[in-house]
Amino acid sequence: MNSESRGDGKLRIALVGCGTVGSGVIRILRESTRLLELRTGRTFELRYVVVRDRSKQRPVSLEGCQVITDVDPILRDSEIDVVIQVMGGIEPARTRMLQFLAAGKDIITANKALLHAHGQELFEAASRADKTICFEAAVAGGIPIIATVTQSLAANRILSIEAILNGTSNFILSRMLDCGQTYEEVLREAQDRGYAEADPAMDVDGTDAAQKLAILTQLAFGTRVQLTDIVRQGIQNLELQDLEVAAELGYRIKLLATSKLAKKKLEISVQPTLVRSDRAIAQTNGADNIVAIEGDAAGLLRLSGAGAGQMPTASAVVADLIDYASGRAAITFKSLLRMQSLEQVPLLPQEELSRRYYLRMTVADRPHVLADIADILGRHEISISSVRQDETPEDEGEEAVARLVIMTHRTTEGRLRAADQELSSLSSLKGSCIRLPVSD
Amino acid sequence: MNSESRGDGKLRIALVGCGTVGSGVIRILRESTRLLELRTGRTFELRYVVVRDRSKQRPVSLEGCQVITDVDPILRDSEIDVVIQVMGGIEPARTRMLQFLAAGKDIITANKALLHAHGQELFEAASRADKTICFEAAVAGGIPIIATVTQSLAANRILSIEAILNGTSNFILSRMLDCGQTYEEVLREAQDRGYAEADPAMDVDGTDAAQKLAILTQLAFGTRVQLTDIVRQGIQNLELQDLEVAAELGYRIKLLATSKLAKKKLEISVQPTLVRSDRAIAQTNGADNIVAIEGDAAGLLRLSGAGAGQMPTASAVVADLIDYASGRAAITFKSLLRMQSLEQVPLLPQEELSRRYYLRMTVADRPHVLADIADILGRHEISISSVRQDETPEDEGEEAVARLVIMTHRTTEGRLRAADQELSSLSSLKGSCIRLPVSD
Repeated sequence: MNSESRGDGKLRIALVGCGTVGSGVIRILRESTRLLELRTGRTFELRYVVVRDRSKQRPVSLEGCQVITDVDPILRDSEIDVVIQVMGGIEPARTRMLQFLAAGKDIITANKALLHAHGQELFEAASRADKTICFEAAVAGGIPIIATVTQSLAANRILSIEAILNGTSNFILSRMLDCGQTYEEVLREAQDRGYAEADPAMDVDGTDAAQKLAILTQLAFGTRVQLTDIVRQGIQNLELQDLEVAAELGYRIKLLATSKLAKKKLEISVQPTLVRSDRAIAQTNGADNIVAIEGDAAGLLRLSGAGAGQMPTASAVVADLIDYASGRAAITFKSLLRMQSLEQVPLLPQEELSRRYYLRMTVADRPHVLADIADILGRHEISISSVRQDETPEDEGEEAVARLVIMTHRTTEGRLRAADQELSSLSSLKGSCIRLPVSD
Repeated sequence: MNSESRGDGKLRIALVGCGTVGSGVIRILRESTRLLELRTGRTFELRYVVVRDRSKQRPVSLEGCQVITDVDPILRDSEIDVVIQVMGGIEPARTRMLQFLAAGKDIITANKALLHAHGQELFEAASRADKTICFEAAVAGGIPIIATVTQSLAANRILSIEAILNGTSNFILSRMLDCGQTYEEVLREAQDRGYAEADPAMDVDGTDAAQKLAILTQLAFGTRVQLTDIVRQGIQNLELQDLEVAAELGYRIKLLATSKLAKKKLEISVQPTLVRSDRAIAQTNGADNIVAIEGDAAGLLRLSGAGAGQMPTASAVVADLIDYASGRAAITFKSLLRMQSLEQVPLLPQEELSRRYYLRMTVADRPHVLADIADILGRHEISISSVRQDETPEDEGEEAVARLVIMTHRTTEGRLRAADQELSSLSSLKGSCIRLPVSD
């Protein structure tokens, strides 16, 4: 018997996960009780908190809640209306969410990996059970981008999304340039300070940003995207000199997540990208996120702020709870389900993505090297816009190397991939060619 | 008999005003029929369009609508669910809106002047009639700031709002600095191109921004604000040299609308303000608007984009229509009415506003002038942070004048007003002292 059939207006909540975000949610529920009641016209009871370790000290009081390690009591308690699921990972989160939906609970979640991998299955399960899934906190933390795409821009056809969706990698790139430090130095510092995970792989290789972009892309364009559909490249191979050379050329390098219409198809990529220094995206520094989204009516809209962190993410979770308690969320979710019948914008094949590119190579400083490289690019119809090779000190002993930076005119990903293969077989090329797109 | 009692799911609409924004609304209704139906699960009929002149040619087809010059047919037609009111000014807009509400029609409006001046009366009338007023388009056009404050940040206590809310004055300030033109030159160009009204007084004197800020302030802090409560100053007296000197000091001058908590009271002002060049607000150029809003949980969130213009404003109006048709808007409006019972944050008296200031004076280039000015400031306990007087060419003939720029340490508006009065009685001061706050 949920709150509606009881008719007492009190909402019974279970919270699954009591780590950083979960503690933040509890803090807001405790400190802003009256605000939440006024906003929604309802009262709230946090009945269950599911933790991994009951003996662990927590920064918030769990008094009045049943602290449990298993979700069964929630499934059996017919008075629980909604489950706030702030645990990460795919399993057991997926199985539990399906169980909650089948048991008649609505869901609020911040789990973008799960939504990306199993969103369709979960949405269908929610639809069958006539339940709602809210997920504002799953993308860009405190930035209300899900509400913006699904509600504020509801009258628009979306033309493009360009975004910084991963705070850790943005912090690293900002810091490298500001302090003249290497990738490794900054990463270590970020880990020491707790900004970066002990295993930051998903952050720095673009997986985290790609999962979020896939969710936004489905909402904005109707298109269901697998990670393998996305041209994806991390920041691990960038060197300080790439950021410095880009800055001299008038650009900042950002891990840019892009979905945009081109020839009625969808270009989609997550790559370190050269962005003109005077653009808002280039000026988004530190751990901040930004989403620039263009609608055919609203024009270009930019939202920026804290894309992660305890209280910003908790703020988004509780905004969902308010939306849910007031009855708006169920309406919005039904609208999303209807929107799935809209024709999907087809994906542009990766080889056809068309951009300008920045190429950086370390080459042996000997005759005919530039000619060889220019010849390969020319044969693949890649037109060079500018070349920059700085003087190398003449040195006795081991062979001197030079850094070569080439900016191309607009060309396709396919041509560059083909050229790259040939370049990599040149004996004069030391290491691999760094290839970054430019956002105009 | 409205759509609910009819139960056919079709929404009957009347549009009052068919100028720039009204035509944009019709364009979206015509071109995005299927999108709107999927979003809402309903169909739409635009039954009436109220115009001033029926013979006027319009950029959109009014086929299928009854084009009328009087609102009586709408009041008498019990099938009309909602009225979209996109006419400006206070009367007859106010009387009509009250009539529509009394006749059982819900309202979507973009009229910020009316909402600011008579919002309370209109909200009470809507509450009595159990009707809804939607007004996303009234503040910052295509930027979803009303939804952000009332829904996305619903779990937050708002700490501050800093915003550029008037596109015309932002265009003028950006253009003056970029092109080295005077205020008058840029204004004339903006009027020729149709960016600025023939009578731009409300835009450039801060009235328009102050009306919008008052609406945001009530939503964010609960505080009802009259225009006279707001420390308000326009851009008309700024000279190109102010923008240039500020730029040299590392600032941009923006017509900044500010509401922020200070000592548990509310500081509220609309003034040309020096903003550090590296901040997003300083980098918001042309006719764009930006709102930087800080919540206690979400942190600092920034939204920027087109704050006016046909399609951005129409985008916000139709977003409201979708929200209304889906049933969300009625829920949100009831929540706003409940929020009015929250305690209002009291206003800080204007004299107690505490900021750093930029002072620019044109003074006679003769002995003891600086001493006189420094003495007046010192006696009012205004501490000088930096002084800048550039060399004046020694010239025969009429008395030479010099430009004096003083940056103060943090001080109060009251002290500066008192000092200003004394300064203006100095015979060595030519014209008035330009006094602008600095936003830290």
